[in-house]
Amino acid sequence: MRTSIIFAVLLGTALARYEPNWNSLDSRPLPSWYDDGKIGIFIHWGVFSVPAFGSEWFWWNWQGSKTPAYTYYMQQNYRPDFTYADFGPMFHAEFYKPDDWADIFQASGANYVVLVSKHHEGFTNWPSKYSFNWNAMDVGPKRDLVGDLANSIRSKTNLKFGVYHSMFEWFHPLFLQDQANNFQTQDFVRTKTMPELYELVNTYKPDIVWSDGEWMAPDTYWNSTEFIAWLYNDSPVKDTVVVNDRWGNNTRCAHGGFWDCDDRFTPGKLIGHKWENCMTLDKYSWGFRANAKLQDILTIEELLSELANTVSLGGNLLINVGPTSFGQILPVYEERFRQLGAWLKVNGEAIYKSGIWTYQSDNATAHVWYTTRTDGPQPVVYAILLNWPRNFLVLSRPNADSGTKISLLGYPNPLTFTSLSGGGVNITIPVIPANEMPCEWAWVIKMEGLANHQPYVSWDAISRNVESIRMRKDSV
Amino acid sequence: MRTSIIFAVLLGTALARYEPNWNSLDSRPLPSWYDDGKIGIFIHWGVFSVPAFGSEWFWWNWQGSKTPAYTYYMQQNYRPDFTYADFGPMFHAEFYKPDDWADIFQASGANYVVLVSKHHEGFTNWPSKYSFNWNAMDVGPKRDLVGDLANSIRSKTNLKFGVYHSMFEWFHPLFLQDQANNFQTQDFVRTKTMPELYELVNTYKPDIVWSDGEWMAPDTYWNSTEFIAWLYNDSPVKDTVVVNDRWGNNTRCAHGGFWDCDDRFTPGKLIGHKWENCMTLDKYSWGFRANAKLQDILTIEELLSELANTVSLGGNLLINVGPTSFGQILPVYEERFRQLGAWLKVNGEAIYKSGIWTYQSDNATAHVWYTTRTDGPQPVVYAILLNWPRNFLVLSRPNADSGTKISLLGYPNPLTFTSLSGGGVNITIPVIPANEMPCEWAWVIKMEGLANHQPYVSWDAISRNVESIRMRKDSV
Amino acid sequence: MRTSIIFAVLLGTALARYEPNWNSLDSRPLPSWYDDGKIGIFIHWGVFSVPAFGSEWFWWNWQGSKTPAYTYYMQQNYRPDFTYADFGPMFHAEFYKPDDWADIFQASGANYVVLVSKHHEGFTNWPSKYSFNWNAMDVGPKRDLVGDLANSIRSKTNLKFGVYHSMFEWFHPLFLQDQANNFQTQDFVRTKTMPELYELVNTYKPDIVWSDGEWMAPDTYWNSTEFIAWLYNDSPVKDTVVVNDRWGNNTRCAHGGFWDCDDRFTPGKLIGHKWENCMTLDKYSWGFRANAKLQDILTIEELLSELANTVSLGGNLLINVGPTSFGQILPVYEERFRQLGAWLKVNGEAIYKSGIWTYQSDNATAHVWYTTRTDGPQPVVYAILLNWPRNFLVLSRPNADSGTKISLLGYPNPLTFTSLSGGGVNITIPVIPANEMPCEWAWVIKMEGLANHQPYVSWDAISRNVESIRMRKDSV
Amino acid sequence: MRTSIIFAVLLGTALARYEPNWNSLDSRPLPSWYDDGKIGIFIHWGVFSVPAFGSEWFWWNWQGSKTPAYTYYMQQNYRPDFTYADFGPMFHAEFYKPDDWADIFQASGANYVVLVSKHHEGFTNWPSKYSFNWNAMDVGPKRDLVGDLANSIRSKTNLKFGVYHSMFEWFHPLFLQDQANNFQTQDFVRTKTMPELYELVNTYKPDIVWSDGEWMAPDTYWNSTEFIAWLYNDSPVKDTVVVNDRWGNNTRCAHGGFWDCDDRFTPGKLIGHKWENCMTLDKYSWGFRANAKLQDILTIEELLSELANTVSLGGNLLINVGPTSFGQILPVYEERFRQLGAWLKVNGEAIYKSGIWTYQSDNATAHVWYTTRTDGPQPVVYAILLNWPRNFLVLSRPNADSGTKISLLGYPNPLTFTSLSGGGVNITIPVIPANEMPCEWAWVIKMEGLANHQPYVSWDAISRNVESIRMRKDSV
Repeated sequence: MRTSIIFAVLLGTALARYEPNWNSLDSRPLPSWYDDGKIGIFIHWGVFSVPAFGSEWFWWNWQGSKTPAYTYYMQQNYRPDFTYADFGPMFHAEFYKPDDWADIFQASGANYVVLVSKHHEGFTNWPSKYSFNWNAMDVGPKRDLVGDLANSIRSKTNLKFGVYHSMFEWFHPLFLQDQANNFQTQDFVRTKTMPELYELVNTYKPDIVWSDGEWMAPDTYWNSTEFIAWLYNDSPVKDTVVVNDRWGNNTRCAHGGFWDCDDRFTPGKLIGHKWENCMTLDKYSWGFRANAKLQDILTIEELLSELANTVSLGGNLLINVGPTSFGQILPVYEERFRQLGAWLKVNGEAIYKSGIWTYQSDNATAHVWYTTRTDGPQPVVYAILLNWPRNFLVLSRPNADSGTKISLLGYPNPLTFTSLSGGGVNITIPVIPANEMPCEWAWVIKMEGLANHQPYVSWDAISRNVESIRMRKDSV
Repeated sequence: MRTSIIFAVLLGTALARYEPNWNSLDSRPLPSWYDDGKIGIFIHWGVFSVPAFGSEWFWWNWQGSKTPAYTYYMQQNYRPDFTYADFGPMFHAEFYKPDDWADIFQASGANYVVLVSKHHEGFTNWPSKYSFNWNAMDVGPKRDLVGDLANSIRSKTNLKFGVYHSMFEWFHPLFLQDQANNFQTQDFVRTKTMPELYELVNTYKPDIVWSDGEWMAPDTYWNSTEFIAWLYNDSPVKDTVVVNDRWGNNTRCAHGGFWDCDDRFTPGKLIGHKWENCMTLDKYSWGFRANAKLQDILTIEELLSELANTVSLGGNLLINVGPTSFGQILPVYEERFRQLGAWLKVNGEAIYKSGIWTYQSDNATAHVWYTTRTDGPQPVVYAILLNWPRNFLVLSRPNADSGTKISLLGYPNPLTFTSLSGGGVNITIPVIPANEMPCEWAWVIKMEGLANHQPYVSWDAISRNVESIRMRKDSV
Repeated sequence: MRTSIIFAVLLGTALARYEPNWNSLDSRPLPSWYDDGKIGIFIHWGVFSVPAFGSEWFWWNWQGSKTPAYTYYMQQNYRPDFTYADFGPMFHAEFYKPDDWADIFQASGANYVVLVSKHHEGFTNWPSKYSFNWNAMDVGPKRDLVGDLANSIRSKTNLKFGVYHSMFEWFHPLFLQDQANNFQTQDFVRTKTMPELYELVNTYKPDIVWSDGEWMAPDTYWNSTEFIAWLYNDSPVKDTVVVNDRWGNNTRCAHGGFWDCDDRFTPGKLIGHKWENCMTLDKYSWGFRANAKLQDILTIEELLSELANTVSLGGNLLINVGPTSFGQILPVYEERFRQLGAWLKVNGEAIYKSGIWTYQSDNATAHVWYTTRTDGPQPVVYAILLNWPRNFLVLSRPNADSGTKISLLGYPNPLTFTSLSGGGVNITIPVIPANEMPCEWAWVIKMEGLANHQPYVSWDAISRNVESIRMRKDSV
Repeated sequence: MRTSIIFAVLLGTALARYEPNWNSLDSRPLPSWYDDGKIGIFIHWGVFSVPAFGSEWFWWNWQGSKTPAYTYYMQQNYRPDFTYADFGPMFHAEFYKPDDWADIFQASGANYVVLVSKHHEGFTNWPSKYSFNWNAMDVGPKRDLVGDLANSIRSKTNLKFGVYHSMFEWFHPLFLQDQANNFQTQDFVRTKTMPELYELVNTYKPDIVWSDGEWMAPDTYWNSTEFIAWLYNDSPVKDTVVVNDRWGNNTRCAHGGFWDCDDRFTPGKLIGHKWENCMTLDKYSWGFRANAKLQDILTIEELLSELANTVSLGGNLLINVGPTSFGQILPVYEERFRQLGAWLKVNGEAIYKSGIWTYQSDNATAHVWYTTRTDGPQPVVYAILLNWPRNFLVLSRPNADSGTKISLLGYPNPLTFTSLSGGGVNITIPVIPANEMPCEWAWVIKMEGLANHQPYVSWDAISRNVESIRMRKDSV
């Protein structure tokens, strides 16, 4: 009998039940698919897509901060008594074909999708029990926008499907009441935030729970650790799910799964934890803007620069697009995604499953970012070049020896090079007619058998000794 | 010291703290203003006023029971994906002037108003914390419809102000979930019904809490007795408030304050409890119907018949009108209210503060209803005549003697009469030119000093011995 | 040969080809059905029924005269760029059942209907070729509102069907251009007014062409006489059609068929021509007003007073109602029409086919109006009493002799009376119980075999010697 | 001196008056700015931009041909009675900033703009007197869309401003009536088409009158020659205006100014007249389509191919874009225009003011198109290469001699070449690093001092002897 008790205890340990505190929750290893996948698609869609003006913070800018441009826009275009909720029935999504979205996302080379299930406006894109008549089934689209995309992603692609969810809502009266009570009451959390999160997970079994809107109150107000403990222990996605770090005003860049820290976060140096750079193709908005101009939208070169920078430093890149209220991804965004996919077809091996190398950028040549792969028979180092070099490429970081092989991804022949005294290599860039270039916009030099290849810089190593890792800061 | 504690406890008891059970709650005396007032105005207004088709049960008939006429109406007039919530922004109330309503209600002679604060559709006509983006401030009117009427009624009239509130909501997912759980869970009650009711009472201090939508579940599901105990013990209206009897599927005609029993309830006999006949000027709907025809609307004669019948049997009459979504009370309804008020100007003394007489209707002449007044120096009996008698009026119920005086309300001279052998009187009806009649549509004979005037039939007497009270059933 | 010439002359006369000048056109006898019928229904319906604010002159008041109340109303309720034409698609007429309208009109006792086919806004309620995308088939109702009512009136009733048509349009650019050219150009008339009128007549074969909007320009601008000559000579309704007098700024009360002169015209004396009093149940508007109150609407007593006054002086009464944009006649208006019909059931013989008597009103008793009938075996004079007389009715105008019979319409027994020295009669009013009165609101005394009954005052007689006809002016 | 003045006046008079027949009108020389400019922007904007479904033929496809996809779309998204005109008020143009459009068009390198002023739907984008309540001032935008763009184009750019105008309208009842009369009546032309055209020209003084919708009827029905004669003789733009060839079902590719012939017309050979290839960036629609995908939109390579082909054969290229109903040019279209402009910055000298060379395409190397310039000190021939050549470029058409100079536009150094026996040259392509290429997508070889440079092939020469001009047909 005693044995069985011990066995049960051991079994309990073996089953790794997490406790609702950060010490325990932070100890869970990040499922590897996330770091391997490197690129995700972020989708901001909601009632804010109807006015499509300014940004997805339309409601707040209009009636919270009362920003003049928004006041003016509403005065010019709507009757005085128009309310934000009145936009709801104008969200029709009549051209929403999630299979088409899935096709674009698959073509982009991304490995996961994060759909806004509810933004700070409180409108749930799924028929939530906890958002009566303020959800996409009851108002406007008359459709389960979340479920329909989940189905398409899962049946048409091999991408993972995740959901974004905002904990707080700008104008929810129960949140405002809890806030007025200095968060000593939790009416909002108990009747809205948490029931929604459980419902979302149980219904759609997302691979990612991407939390946001947490910054107004501490994790204890939100009951975050209880939720994550359930997610890790008992939820239908306990083995595969990943979460981010936005679970309370004390958790960003500190607790949770991967770290998002701020929007458009790039640390500029190595940090001791897996992180993600969530950014958006429209420089000024996450949600669709009807009056966005070309100059507001990232070029493919800018996007690839962001990707190289991010991956080199150990981040994932989460690329956002805002569909129209009609349900369409504008062609210019589709173009960026397909351009990215075309580039990754040639260069993806330097991105997916890559790790952080000893160095992240080069000392001698600007705009060169390093990644490494250690999952093959021997380690490989990749230098991602944002500029095409003229005749010669001097790299100060890699040291070559006789076993070293250097090539250009997508180019059939090996490249010749010489070792520099004092370290580094000088690579001869072949003459390639413009229309025979392996790819456009950025290029990848692959280096096998380097003399100074160090072991993969694991997250463990990083967290033990981040400071000892040298990197060229100014180029970041 | 110990004595004083005991005293305080006893005093507490003496102050009549009600306990959350029907025995205790039912023991509270009904505040007298309610029985004295006799006539109330009922107002059904909400999102259902926008389609204004069929009835205020539009949503249910359309998407619950799927009645073909509603399906057809929607198919003919709206896009296929139109949802009920999409009607919300079309509820503008642009012509809503609560002072004008107050003027009409005052002119009608009614003594209280009961406004629908939330019907089964769940849309709160006040800015409830518990109905985010599905209330009149967030969607459509952008206005506190309840508060604005309360202010007008209180500042412009001496009517009492009450609120109707539906406990259940046809399509609220939490209600449906509780229902699916056989009402073993109370998520809906805890997060919606009860918070709303407390909010309503604390905010608007209504004189009446007119509950409805209770019939799906027992009072124990709704926590009704707890609420009423608070209302009677601790609420800001504890001394004056009245409630009805719709607090659970086991309470109608059994528990609460006055009894509404069914819609359009008239018992057809005396019952041992104060009751109310809630009925509506549009025979087919409580909410506004854009296609109502004249034949669908009660004539003033029918309305007065209903009033006489109801008051005679001890009921109050709650007369409903459905304003348009623009905020207007149609002229035909205003006409009925003003006609009623004109009639009451002459005949109100037979209605207000009246009690039940020994007999309710007459045996010899049809369409005659009796009331009595015992609040003057001597008892008075009133016979309300729905038809104008030709030359003579024979009444079998009153017995006259030498002290008896008979008159016609609004007519200056006393009427002559003779006593009939075997009881009753034969009253000579004077010749009155058509344009000098005291009033139209119905007339009241006032009888003072009757030989057989019995003491006022108190509610106590009624409840002790209802069966012994004779009445002419066939005329009811 | 001589014979044939005479024959041709006679034939020419018989064929009665009218020439396009007023001398000729005015010589056409008015088809008798019009004077016989006495009562018509006027219907103002159009895009103005959508805002339903102020009056059917909404557009002009808003953007023409810029009346502040209208500016404010629009600012409060619509986006700044909202145009009047934007109201068009909101005109749905979803409850329009012309058979129901026909039923009401029939029940009213009226004998003709005049529907606004196009008001000054220019929106044609029929699918006109000359009003592309600004007509009821192309915008809003998607239905031929005129044709559908014509069909119902003709198949369900024996009323005549006529159309109102506005010659000018407030904001039509071609009209404004002609106006700017001092009406020396006729672009608007040639491409809009006249093609529409011919189309209307050829398509709907109206019994009345009720013209309006003529006052800005002379008949020569409008080509009115050419149109009427065609109407009288060659149109499909040449034998039965009647027209009014609004055909140019020089024609009112002067030329055409019957005279409307001004809106709500009553001459206050006899005039030498058949005329019509067009008036409206809503005292302040011809089109529907969503915020009309009961006090704005004529009572049945006021309506009967208007009728008596009008018919006594030789006019027809054209009673206007404004249906809602939903296509509904409000119950209060239906009530007036049905009340009128009930009254006419009893008293119609004093109205229909009646003529002008020697006197129009009484000298001794106020609010008494006379009509006469000469189409029976002997002349009859009717006195319409707006008040019910007390005991006796003294009439100064009629002289009785032994052959005189006096009765009350709807009352079975003859009335007794005495002749007054110096002329006039004193009629004994019988005692009638209130509920046995023959009718409500007004009553008719019928006098047969009067001593001073003069021959029917024909229009000819009137026009020869109007001044010699005595009437009590002050009572008119 | 005096004589010469008189002579000049007489000459001026004598020279300038065209007669309303094609012989005379066709004799007018095309103002040179048109052929010199080569590239125009075409803008399809109107009510069809609101449904933004299928194409600008939406109305016809829905209610004319009743194409099932359109029927289905309307059934799914609109109420059954929805009419096309009901779309009008939804055309808001709230983000329309014509200065921004002007900036994009200027950046594209185009030299003229042709805005749809009215398409077959009949909605005029200017406040026409002849389209009451069906124009952009009266319905929807409440703005003069045409005038506002004209102002921006003229004040912010040096582009010419032209207007597209459809003669017929699908559903205009007067057109349908004329059609039913076999075009023996001209009610539509007299009241609509022609007044509009004169109004357009007089108001906006367009440099181009780009007619369309002419194919249903002959030029005699439309009164086209009268209009053009006025345009050439007396209009405010008589000296500069150009017109196309769509003036009747007998005029395409035969009469007028430049020839558009069919949409997307490229003759595939030389034709004896100046022509224009009007085509559109969205392969499937001229109007905006909300559900256009990237694959539906021309790539910049496809656009440049179209340009090279067109200009080489003597055509102008009119590139169409469909703005949204909000007034926005989608970023993907802005991208194409700016890409085109970037390319023209380098290569424009081969396009603008260029003429047709002896040969249009090459015999030895595919996808090479020739143009020539004769406006400099010596003739120059340009070869536009749609592919970047590997190492060597063999051209069969040009013959070089010692005076010949060959270069690559945008590349600083001359190119070396050898003459081929039997004619032609073999040009050595320099090694240029990818990021130092003079331009992307297409490149231009400039050849000066060719041995076989023939005089510029004038339109005169072409029209005299088109057949004798050799060209490689299969490559066109």
